[in-house]
Amino acid sequence: MKKILFLLLILPGLLLAQNHETNIKLIFETELSQGHTYQNLRYLTKKIGHRLAGSPGAAASVEWTRQLMESYGFDTVYLQPVMVPHWERGGKDVVKIVNSSKHGTVELNALALGNTQGTGPKGLVGELIEVKSIEELRALGEKVKGKIVFFNGPMDPRKVDAFQAYGGANAQRSSGAGEASKLGAIGTLVRSLSPTVNDIPHTGNQRYNPDFPKIPAIAISTADAELLSDLLEDQPDLRVYLESHGEMKPDQLSYNVIGELWGSEKPEEIIAVGGHLDSWDVGEGAHDDGAGCIQAIEVLRLYKSMGWKPKRTLRAVMWMNEENGLRGGQEYAKVAKAKGEKHIAAIESDSGGFLPTGFTSTGTEAQRAKLQSWGDLLLPYQLWNLDKPGGGADIGPLRDQGPILIGLKPDSQRYFYLHHTEADVFEAVDQRELELGAAAMAALVYLIDQEGI
Amino acid sequence: MKKILFLLLILPGLLLAQNHETNIKLIFETELSQGHTYQNLRYLTKKIGHRLAGSPGAAASVEWTRQLMESYGFDTVYLQPVMVPHWERGGKDVVKIVNSSKHGTVELNALALGNTQGTGPKGLVGELIEVKSIEELRALGEKVKGKIVFFNGPMDPRKVDAFQAYGGANAQRSSGAGEASKLGAIGTLVRSLSPTVNDIPHTGNQRYNPDFPKIPAIAISTADAELLSDLLEDQPDLRVYLESHGEMKPDQLSYNVIGELWGSEKPEEIIAVGGHLDSWDVGEGAHDDGAGCIQAIEVLRLYKSMGWKPKRTLRAVMWMNEENGLRGGQEYAKVAKAKGEKHIAAIESDSGGFLPTGFTSTGTEAQRAKLQSWGDLLLPYQLWNLDKPGGGADIGPLRDQGPILIGLKPDSQRYFYLHHTEADVFEAVDQRELELGAAAMAALVYLIDQEGI
Repeated sequence: MKKILFLLLILPGLLLAQNHETNIKLIFETELSQGHTYQNLRYLTKKIGHRLAGSPGAAASVEWTRQLMESYGFDTVYLQPVMVPHWERGGKDVVKIVNSSKHGTVELNALALGNTQGTGPKGLVGELIEVKSIEELRALGEKVKGKIVFFNGPMDPRKVDAFQAYGGANAQRSSGAGEASKLGAIGTLVRSLSPTVNDIPHTGNQRYNPDFPKIPAIAISTADAELLSDLLEDQPDLRVYLESHGEMKPDQLSYNVIGELWGSEKPEEIIAVGGHLDSWDVGEGAHDDGAGCIQAIEVLRLYKSMGWKPKRTLRAVMWMNEENGLRGGQEYAKVAKAKGEKHIAAIESDSGGFLPTGFTSTGTEAQRAKLQSWGDLLLPYQLWNLDKPGGGADIGPLRDQGPILIGLKPDSQRYFYLHHTEADVFEAVDQRELELGAAAMAALVYLIDQEGI
Repeated sequence: MKKILFLLLILPGLLLAQNHETNIKLIFETELSQGHTYQNLRYLTKKIGHRLAGSPGAAASVEWTRQLMESYGFDTVYLQPVMVPHWERGGKDVVKIVNSSKHGTVELNALALGNTQGTGPKGLVGELIEVKSIEELRALGEKVKGKIVFFNGPMDPRKVDAFQAYGGANAQRSSGAGEASKLGAIGTLVRSLSPTVNDIPHTGNQRYNPDFPKIPAIAISTADAELLSDLLEDQPDLRVYLESHGEMKPDQLSYNVIGELWGSEKPEEIIAVGGHLDSWDVGEGAHDDGAGCIQAIEVLRLYKSMGWKPKRTLRAVMWMNEENGLRGGQEYAKVAKAKGEKHIAAIESDSGGFLPTGFTSTGTEAQRAKLQSWGDLLLPYQLWNLDKPGGGADIGPLRDQGPILIGLKPDSQRYFYLHHTEADVFEAVDQRELELGAAAMAALVYLIDQEGI
């Protein structure tokens, strides 16, 4: 009797060691029929909502994810302190055309970019100069002086992977204001980074050049960018009124939130899996990146719910402040180095909770070959895409510590409609796609845990 | 001068022959930046709407697609007559629990199945007997007599491909009423074939057993199926009132709509690409299967817009009556055989206008190997999925004439939320996903046209 009991107790361990195919099937079937990801994301988005670093929402999300992981009985759950920048929008952003000969005054759909200094309540008025890129701006030189630069570079619809189209257009948002200020511009308007033409403005990070004035930088919707461009063509002396209220406040204390399952054989080898807990201050940060956080927690919860004990230490990490500072990812790497921790892999889900297609990676040839050697085990779950380079913003700082860096690669087609907007809400997330992403990460973590990498 | 002109004229042909990679890139880039699919689908769904075979909507869609293909200047556009069944819903479908000890009268979200005979305005009342499958029904035998059979088999959420979950549950809808009638049941209620629990009922085809009475068969939403099952557990004498008004009317004359670009080298070899033009009588038939029709037209339009002349004859086909009879597909194959036409390939898009992942196929080993040999050319467009068996309902009847049968295989996760419901509308279609599907079909047609199969 005792012998049978003993066998039953070690059975999960035996299964784990012996049949990857069966265990991965079990991961997917369990997640698709009894997963917690969707209900957890509903709570994070609907009860807490958006959570820009330093905001009360961010604090609430730290406390809630901590409690959630504790409720699942992980071996340890703790907070890692990190000082984060604290930007506040401060009020409604306004952009108005004030002298259209055709339409008179026209208000545009506007949203100031993150980390920007606002105009204050008096606003400012100026003439516009339109460019499609930073290269075009530079070529204009002196002509920019005293003007508002209107960056109107569209995402290239011909790119099949929408992240490539985003990458091709986002310099105007992230560094356009700094470059324009260098040439004496008094403000910038930026066409939203969206693959479609509609009324939704997209915010996002921008970095000033510290040697030049911090001029206002406001995104307008793609439909309004097209309108403005058309009107400018007929009337080059068009003037716009800008009003924004953004301000950098003193840094705030916040936290990365970490939960662990300790390894039974090589507890010193860490496999980190995570997303970033902060979001922009509009919408609910559902795809960006509530999905990734909830999926990471689910990886460890699945292990617990199936009674599996990992060989190595699994760590779910919710990084803080990816959007406008990356302080959480930097602090996490710094602490890991100081403690002499050994990460063998770091996996981030920060490309939306859409249908997973595989994983991108950065690492040695041997590490990447090992990842790709699991192709046959992952293909039944439509994870075909294992050979592209990549990773994730928050795990980047770990690079010199040697782990393979891996990014979950979901389908990209629908992400940039809602990225950094009021439309990034729970309702835009599909339950099965979200669950498939969580199961994909769990399957990969399982393989790395069993075989190393 | 004449020589140069001649060279210019044959240049597209030269390009076509020489560089598949470049030409496929051109197809995708053209479609993603200048495609007509989205605007055409908007017209079909918003201006015409649903189009059950034999209905005025179906006639409108025949005429509109004919005119559309003529406007694109295809070499010929014509209608292929076919007699189709003509079912009418006839009024609002009603299902009410009439004696719940807990709630009294409860009205459920109901939608009669297609081709069913209604109860008429007097309705009928009966006690329920719940089963999860046709096997369970058969095991009950005599107990079914005089009862309303409640089929409550869910789609299995553990299947990664939602079509497999659908296939596992749809017998209760397609043949449940015939089987129940054989055992003396007076009606059936059917849990909607949906992967989620919500209030939307799904209609769909059902086939009576001709030797037994045509009893009413009505779908109820998944949420109501769960409610009904819960109430039945507490109160086995629960009774429901059914009212439906469906009726088969005399067959109607309708048409398959066909457009062609004639081949320059082997015009006798036909490559057919299509979808079905009919839909159910709710929603707008956007994914099912307006998307497939519009994508097929786009394949030929892309050829025209790029000035390409096919080697073989390309034929866009809008089959009529896939949903409740398949008469269009049958007639098409019959006519092809009678005329001695030689189809080398028939491609159908009828799995929704979602992100394409590849193609399924049915054919000889050599045909399927040829298809898979193009994997490297299609992979840059995320078309990784080329080895699964499949095809399409409308092209099935062509099988004994020798062509490879090919189905566009889009991602399946979101299809069955809206399949055969009021939710299958234009707004549920993503522009880029729809375009990628059209480009995928165009790329495949291009390869078959150039190389044969």
